[in-house]
Amino acid sequence: MRQNDVVSTMSVDLAFGENELLPAVAQDAESGDVLMLAYVTEEALERSRETGHAHYYSRSRDELWHKGATSGHVQHVEGIRVDCDGDAILYLVDQDGGACHTGYESCFHRTIDGEVTDDPVFDPDEVYE
Amino acid sequence: MRQNDVVSTMSVDLAFGENELLPAVAQDAESGDVLMLAYVTEEALERSRETGHAHYYSRSRDELWHKGATSGHVQHVEGIRVDCDGDAILYLVDQDGGACHTGYESCFHRTIDGEVTDDPVFDPDEVYE
Repeated sequence: MRQNDVVSTMSVDLAFGENELLPAVAQDAESGDVLMLAYVTEEALERSRETGHAHYYSRSRDELWHKGATSGHVQHVEGIRVDCDGDAILYLVDQDGGACHTGYESCFHRTIDGEVTDDPVFDPDEVYE
Repeated sequence: MRQNDVVSTMSVDLAFGENELLPAVAQDAESGDVLMLAYVTEEALERSRETGHAHYYSRSRDELWHKGATSGHVQHVEGIRVDCDGDAILYLVDQDGGACHTGYESCFHRTIDGEVTDDPVFDPDEVYE
């Protein structure tokens, strides 16, 4: 496979791939729950650092994504980790409301056998118009 | 962007992308620490379920990857979660040794500013020949 281009705009080298996206995991800084996985661009990372709110890049809408801008369920960034290869990001966050648009705290609320493991924390019909 | 093909070989629909890989996060089932992010194919997922050891797909070696086969640092899979969109996987694992080939328990042992946040748990020179 082709090598990723390594850029170094931050203090660590980040290996943004050919589509300039890196996967980013959001983890609840207090409970340790893994909340979601999305993707970031350099701009999204910079906006997260500047604003203190987690930003991603929406692949479906093809635009910078301020998580919670619609729902109010923002993620307050308490730390950002980078993995050993510089090709994955970990946001440590304090999550307002829930991370998942289906009403759960975590997007990972199902087993691979389809069993729901969590209870919903909000009603998406009341949050999203 | 083009839509992913949705396949349904498990009990939940998994949206494997055009390269047939999904990102997979490994989390320590007990401590909650996020250990690493890698990628899985359907075969890797099936092997993880069959063997109880986390399997991934190595993009650099372009082959199925039994994590820990060389180092002995296998991940005992205690659960597998799927996210709401079926396009990301969460392995809940009991990690032997450390997940990171650099000697740390977690690959996410650095802040984005390059500060190392963890202590090493093994000497990679003794584990990898």
